[in-house]
Amino acid sequence: MTQDQPISDLGFARVDHLREARWGLPEAVLGMGKTADQVAQIVARIVERDRGPVLVTRSSVEQYDAVRTLTPQAEWLETPRMIRVAREPVVTAGTVAVVSAGTGDLPVAEEAAVTAETGGATVDRVYDVGVAGLHRVLAEADRLAAADCLVVVAGMEGALPTVVAGLTGAPVVAVPTSIGYGASYDGLAALLGMLNSCAPQVVVVNIDNGFGAGFFAARVTRKR
Amino acid sequence: MTQDQPISDLGFARVDHLREARWGLPEAVLGMGKTADQVAQIVARIVERDRGPVLVTRSSVEQYDAVRTLTPQAEWLETPRMIRVAREPVVTAGTVAVVSAGTGDLPVAEEAAVTAETGGATVDRVYDVGVAGLHRVLAEADRLAAADCLVVVAGMEGALPTVVAGLTGAPVVAVPTSIGYGASYDGLAALLGMLNSCAPQVVVVNIDNGFGAGFFAARVTRKR
Amino acid sequence: MTQDQPISDLGFARVDHLREARWGLPEAVLGMGKTADQVAQIVARIVERDRGPVLVTRSSVEQYDAVRTLTPQAEWLETPRMIRVAREPVVTAGTVAVVSAGTGDLPVAEEAAVTAETGGATVDRVYDVGVAGLHRVLAEADRLAAADCLVVVAGMEGALPTVVAGLTGAPVVAVPTSIGYGASYDGLAALLGMLNSCAPQVVVVNIDNGFGAGFFAARVTRKR
Amino acid sequence: MTQDQPISDLGFARVDHLREARWGLPEAVLGMGKTADQVAQIVARIVERDRGPVLVTRSSVEQYDAVRTLTPQAEWLETPRMIRVAREPVVTAGTVAVVSAGTGDLPVAEEAAVTAETGGATVDRVYDVGVAGLHRVLAEADRLAAADCLVVVAGMEGALPTVVAGLTGAPVVAVPTSIGYGASYDGLAALLGMLNSCAPQVVVVNIDNGFGAGFFAARVTRKR
Amino acid sequence: MTQDQPISDLGFARVDHLREARWGLPEAVLGMGKTADQVAQIVARIVERDRGPVLVTRSSVEQYDAVRTLTPQAEWLETPRMIRVAREPVVTAGTVAVVSAGTGDLPVAEEAAVTAETGGATVDRVYDVGVAGLHRVLAEADRLAAADCLVVVAGMEGALPTVVAGLTGAPVVAVPTSIGYGASYDGLAALLGMLNSCAPQVVVVNIDNGFGAGFFAARVTRKR
Amino acid sequence: MTQDQPISDLGFARVDHLREARWGLPEAVLGMGKTADQVAQIVARIVERDRGPVLVTRSSVEQYDAVRTLTPQAEWLETPRMIRVAREPVVTAGTVAVVSAGTGDLPVAEEAAVTAETGGATVDRVYDVGVAGLHRVLAEADRLAAADCLVVVAGMEGALPTVVAGLTGAPVVAVPTSIGYGASYDGLAALLGMLNSCAPQVVVVNIDNGFGAGFFAARVTRKR
Amino acid sequence: MTQDQPISDLGFARVDHLREARWGLPEAVLGMGKTADQVAQIVARIVERDRGPVLVTRSSVEQYDAVRTLTPQAEWLETPRMIRVAREPVVTAGTVAVVSAGTGDLPVAEEAAVTAETGGATVDRVYDVGVAGLHRVLAEADRLAAADCLVVVAGMEGALPTVVAGLTGAPVVAVPTSIGYGASYDGLAALLGMLNSCAPQVVVVNIDNGFGAGFFAARVTRKR
Amino acid sequence: MTQDQPISDLGFARVDHLREARWGLPEAVLGMGKTADQVAQIVARIVERDRGPVLVTRSSVEQYDAVRTLTPQAEWLETPRMIRVAREPVVTAGTVAVVSAGTGDLPVAEEAAVTAETGGATVDRVYDVGVAGLHRVLAEADRLAAADCLVVVAGMEGALPTVVAGLTGAPVVAVPTSIGYGASYDGLAALLGMLNSCAPQVVVVNIDNGFGAGFFAARVTRKR
Repeated sequence: MTQDQPISDLGFARVDHLREARWGLPEAVLGMGKTADQVAQIVARIVERDRGPVLVTRSSVEQYDAVRTLTPQAEWLETPRMIRVAREPVVTAGTVAVVSAGTGDLPVAEEAAVTAETGGATVDRVYDVGVAGLHRVLAEADRLAAADCLVVVAGMEGALPTVVAGLTGAPVVAVPTSIGYGASYDGLAALLGMLNSCAPQVVVVNIDNGFGAGFFAARVTRKR
Repeated sequence: MTQDQPISDLGFARVDHLREARWGLPEAVLGMGKTADQVAQIVARIVERDRGPVLVTRSSVEQYDAVRTLTPQAEWLETPRMIRVAREPVVTAGTVAVVSAGTGDLPVAEEAAVTAETGGATVDRVYDVGVAGLHRVLAEADRLAAADCLVVVAGMEGALPTVVAGLTGAPVVAVPTSIGYGASYDGLAALLGMLNSCAPQVVVVNIDNGFGAGFFAARVTRKR
Repeated sequence: MTQDQPISDLGFARVDHLREARWGLPEAVLGMGKTADQVAQIVARIVERDRGPVLVTRSSVEQYDAVRTLTPQAEWLETPRMIRVAREPVVTAGTVAVVSAGTGDLPVAEEAAVTAETGGATVDRVYDVGVAGLHRVLAEADRLAAADCLVVVAGMEGALPTVVAGLTGAPVVAVPTSIGYGASYDGLAALLGMLNSCAPQVVVVNIDNGFGAGFFAARVTRKR
Repeated sequence: MTQDQPISDLGFARVDHLREARWGLPEAVLGMGKTADQVAQIVARIVERDRGPVLVTRSSVEQYDAVRTLTPQAEWLETPRMIRVAREPVVTAGTVAVVSAGTGDLPVAEEAAVTAETGGATVDRVYDVGVAGLHRVLAEADRLAAADCLVVVAGMEGALPTVVAGLTGAPVVAVPTSIGYGASYDGLAALLGMLNSCAPQVVVVNIDNGFGAGFFAARVTRKR
Repeated sequence: MTQDQPISDLGFARVDHLREARWGLPEAVLGMGKTADQVAQIVARIVERDRGPVLVTRSSVEQYDAVRTLTPQAEWLETPRMIRVAREPVVTAGTVAVVSAGTGDLPVAEEAAVTAETGGATVDRVYDVGVAGLHRVLAEADRLAAADCLVVVAGMEGALPTVVAGLTGAPVVAVPTSIGYGASYDGLAALLGMLNSCAPQVVVVNIDNGFGAGFFAARVTRKR
Repeated sequence: MTQDQPISDLGFARVDHLREARWGLPEAVLGMGKTADQVAQIVARIVERDRGPVLVTRSSVEQYDAVRTLTPQAEWLETPRMIRVAREPVVTAGTVAVVSAGTGDLPVAEEAAVTAETGGATVDRVYDVGVAGLHRVLAEADRLAAADCLVVVAGMEGALPTVVAGLTGAPVVAVPTSIGYGASYDGLAALLGMLNSCAPQVVVVNIDNGFGAGFFAARVTRKR
Repeated sequence: MTQDQPISDLGFARVDHLREARWGLPEAVLGMGKTADQVAQIVARIVERDRGPVLVTRSSVEQYDAVRTLTPQAEWLETPRMIRVAREPVVTAGTVAVVSAGTGDLPVAEEAAVTAETGGATVDRVYDVGVAGLHRVLAEADRLAAADCLVVVAGMEGALPTVVAGLTGAPVVAVPTSIGYGASYDGLAALLGMLNSCAPQVVVVNIDNGFGAGFFAARVTRKR
Repeated sequence: MTQDQPISDLGFARVDHLREARWGLPEAVLGMGKTADQVAQIVARIVERDRGPVLVTRSSVEQYDAVRTLTPQAEWLETPRMIRVAREPVVTAGTVAVVSAGTGDLPVAEEAAVTAETGGATVDRVYDVGVAGLHRVLAEADRLAAADCLVVVAGMEGALPTVVAGLTGAPVVAVPTSIGYGASYDGLAALLGMLNSCAPQVVVVNIDNGFGAGFFAARVTRKR
């Protein structure tokens, strides 16, 4: 394989080098379900062939240990359980507010925030403003209104995105989380709630998919 | 059967005359699944044996026609599709606010309101204050705070009860409705959302069960 | 109520006049679950108080007949079953490609396309390019790549959004439809497939929610 | 932040000091999903700023160890796995009967009982009276009839609340538990059964939500 | 085909004549999904070849009209929507009590009662004794205790079989019905409740399957 | 567009002419969700451009009337509700046995049988051999063993494919049908049963998808 | 409490001594969810007050160790994970065949077999006769036909009970097990299959409920 | 038992020796749910009585250790967690392409590949060609088109089988995997997607059932 081919075939994986051009960020690596060695080799190849920052999501400390052997500049981010190889974003984007309902939603919110930053956005974190105490979110109305796009992260009943959407005109990406118990059904209640939002500028991603929400939000605010 | 037996056995139904003493309201009749003639006979027997007002829920005009032959004072209530034989409530209760999210939720909200009135409560109707336009519900905060108990009716995402619960200290009875489409799953999304409410004074009844919510709310505010 | 209040209280509905300022489009009316007369009055009030074009979704011919009595300039759109009062969009937006998988998905695709146009976007319709004949969608790769945002509408297995996302760098809003039978479960199969898309710039709206997708897509491409 | 602000922003959490005034009890802390240190700091802040007793639910011994370092008067309650900082209730309430179906339901029943006591109620515990041996519950009919509000806790088929509701005129808060196996589906069977109760004064909370039921029951019986 | 072959091949159906010997009743015909003519031919063949009474379940008046042309002695049973060709039962069985919770459960209860009678049992009908008014079922305890086997029919929450099982030592066959609304999910709530009964002599059949319950109950009490 | 282009763009549909070469049969038309006129135009175009027989599935008499205006040789098949334009199959295939459990499964079985014949197979129909009377299916063991591939159609519990698979070494394509009531959940019970078959040569298609099963079976037995 | 009271109140449990008279077996103890000490005390009290053999189901070795301290004659049964205190059955019953589909179903089958023996029945074990090799079950047809009642235990697709019911005229109690993977959904596929059995003498118990099936089968065959 | 009996009764299992004749491969052993000793004895008996290669699926190293004591030639395959006793296949088959979407799908893909090889097929492995980077799968179009049958393994959204089916005319066996998170529901999203494939030559097996897919694919391509 020569340098200019769009795919790196590592045997166990085909790394896609077209993504950076198409999406503004090199292929991100889903750590879950891969061995530490597989992750390390994939990260090394991306660092070698692509220009932008590299992320591993749903990762582990064991994977991080393998990665930094080949890629010493890699960092471990504890809350979102991500590995990051920080480099200049290929694109620049606008302001993304990442809003979360409760303390338990922090790992997903941080995954979204780190991803949006990696995608070139300025991120404003507005955490623990769940709707049971409405004054908490109303007190931050100005910050919410100032963002170009908002990622709203909530578990349990998932009501926060609609409330936030009533305080801004910008697009809202809702992320249901698996936080809750009983009839939350690991995020299903929040997912269904968000899909049925009566605010028309709310879209939804998979349960706990902070990465997708952050990526999408940065993309939406990208300055071309 | 003598007058003082607690059950009227009509062959097809056993009318329970203990309920008025126990619950403050004669047995209510579920119209759904009964013939018009069955409903008419049951209503007539309750009117004969019990003292308080009588309600038929999930009813039909055909059932009403049969009922008023035997019980001319019966009224037809179009929006909640109920038959009512208005008499003095056996008990007196406090103030119940019935709050609804959208125009489509009106039949269920009215079922709750009529039932609460029948149970002796003063009812304050606060309709069409869904959370996508938060200022609509905030504008009614004083009325919400003045109620002894609140019934909150919402379909789709079912976020309204939690928001309302943040504006009052009184008990909140949440009623999911089957209003919506797609992933609302005929009220399942709203039901799950309400069961996962992060406000601790929110309890839930069955989908579209305005009767149960109104009955419970009047009972809670009863002045003994 | 004076002209400058943000809410029109019609008794059965509270029309929200803040939405045009916040979202760039007057409040849209969900026809489903409202009487023809209610729809007609709401539309008339919005036309009177707001500036932009007005849409009624999930509507009926009966509702349209009532609307045009008060608002003669209203049109009936058969395929998406919408009423439209065409006026100048308040904002201007970019290019939105609306892509659909099969002929049965047309009503939802048209709801998205009309809404995006109403929201100020230029719309490019790319219909009937389902993935079973991959050359059909590959043949339109240039049109897909030219859009600022894409709405991709598909029922049954819902694979089209991911395939489309591999042919563009722009944001993709996926709309599952209820088209299918058996284990499609009225759009559930497509919804789950889209939520699990392995392409990171795909977000999802409710089953058959062409309105939400078109609104969001136009919003994302808005030129401020 | 000064003493009289309604929110304590700890960075990772915003403690809401308005709840005591509104709901009669300081904000309760959900232990699940928080670090021991986070719990300890939140509890300390509530003790400092609010007047009433403090509860941590779904907690752990590790969290308790952290809490008592800052708040030595905190107790550990083994059966319901709660931390309690006992102080005078802000309000006084009536009598709440907590009724449970089986031995396995005890942790949830105790969570309800402790919460109701904390909310100012007198609690009467009536445990292990499941309906398969009907004489067990009938033997306690007098205690059930004496309560101002009843919390009924049951797993498996969840039939107990309806049976209890037939023995009293007071409001009944039903709590489904995750006790069971096979088609109990972790409390779903009990939840659905309770939502379909044919007794009109039965309302329902989330599976295993003893806290919510106890809080609501105490609130309902509050003497103002 | 000769008379003594165990199967009658009618082209569209293979009638099984071994069942009478094996099960004590000729093959019963499920009307649902068959044309009127198909039902008529199948019934005529069974009458010709087998000895015992013949039943068509989930039938229609149109099917009945076709059946009585070929089999004039056939009767139409309105409540359970069955066709019956009454003949001497092949076997004799004991006493089966058929117990139902509400008026809406009557069609399924009657299907069970007629089938048990057809299977040679003496049937005692105990109807409308739902658990919300517990004294109604307690008042019939003697009749319940006298049966050799009980069929208990209930919709909504499905609590009745367990309560009945606590009043007898005989086997109980529970039949969930599709009566209810909202979270009854067409009998699912009742089905799950019955499967989780804490009484060990309760078994369950399909939703609305009065035929299976009546057949099984008669079989269990058969005197050989 | 010239004759040799692989796609016919009719505006509302893109007919795919590559399928005949790839799959041995022209594109089949799903009638459901298309207007009669759309179906008629699509069929006419396929007849014009492709060589093999044409099928419309899930069709209606109204669609048939429109089709035969343009394509007079089209036939209407009542039981499977299909339109067929019979022409020589492009390929020849082996013997396919189509086996069904009950009379209600006939429409799906016929859809499979007609499709397999259209795909060049010789079809042996073995109908109404459900497992409750095991001797019915055992009596046909020789016919089952003689087929090159078997399509087995069953609703309710869906046990027939595994039983048949134990009587042959050939591939078995299982088709769950929506026949049943209550806990059959419109074919879900049969679908799950078939997916869990303990016979390793059983594969499954969508509920009621006789077309897919017949197409696949003919393909498997194709003589190249 | 005196000896002749029907309930032993141990504080944490109310042991029901009426069951032996009513059901022919002392109350069985569900081990799951109880502490070892609770189980030991309950068993000791039953041994002291009742006459028949005692069973603990879903138990553990730790519970057994506690039990035999107070009740030395208790045995541990490894496969079904039960504790048994063998004593003379109070009643005598007939012959119960316990039939299982696969090796993984043995624990549930043994729970049924031991319970039926404890209930006074003679048990014939017919194991590993799943339907994929139909000759295995046909080879045991005589033993199946000889039983007064059959318990049929199967996971995965759950087809065995219907096949067995076609080989006998006796009542069949079907037990779905949680054996399987993927779309078996922990026994749901088997449960639904059994509920939809087309054999009319099949009834169903909860997933993995060998105890209930064995108890019921012995009861049905009891000789009074 | 003599050598020529078709079943080996080991007490805990009945090994079926007819399968080799019927299906071309000795009975395969499902390791899950069996003790190491049971697996070892079953394998030894099959090796003794049958001719072809033997497989144990869903196995463990502990089972392998027991197997090789009795059958030293057995191998352990780490990725698919299988035990194999390699011997000459009884039949010869054609070419099977095993295609997988992601690195996490490898264990299931390898189970399919090893089984197809054991069944006499030549296997071509085409791994990590998920649809988000469509050029990866298009680059392998020639290898896909060359196979006589294809097994396509994918988790998450499960779109790959339809895309592959558009690149070949051969039969496609789709295998959903449990890879994914959130709304993938352990393979349900992929399963539903595959069942709704709009390509007619796609059939489906259970989630993670690589064995069944490989067995079926080899069978379909068998040269008789």
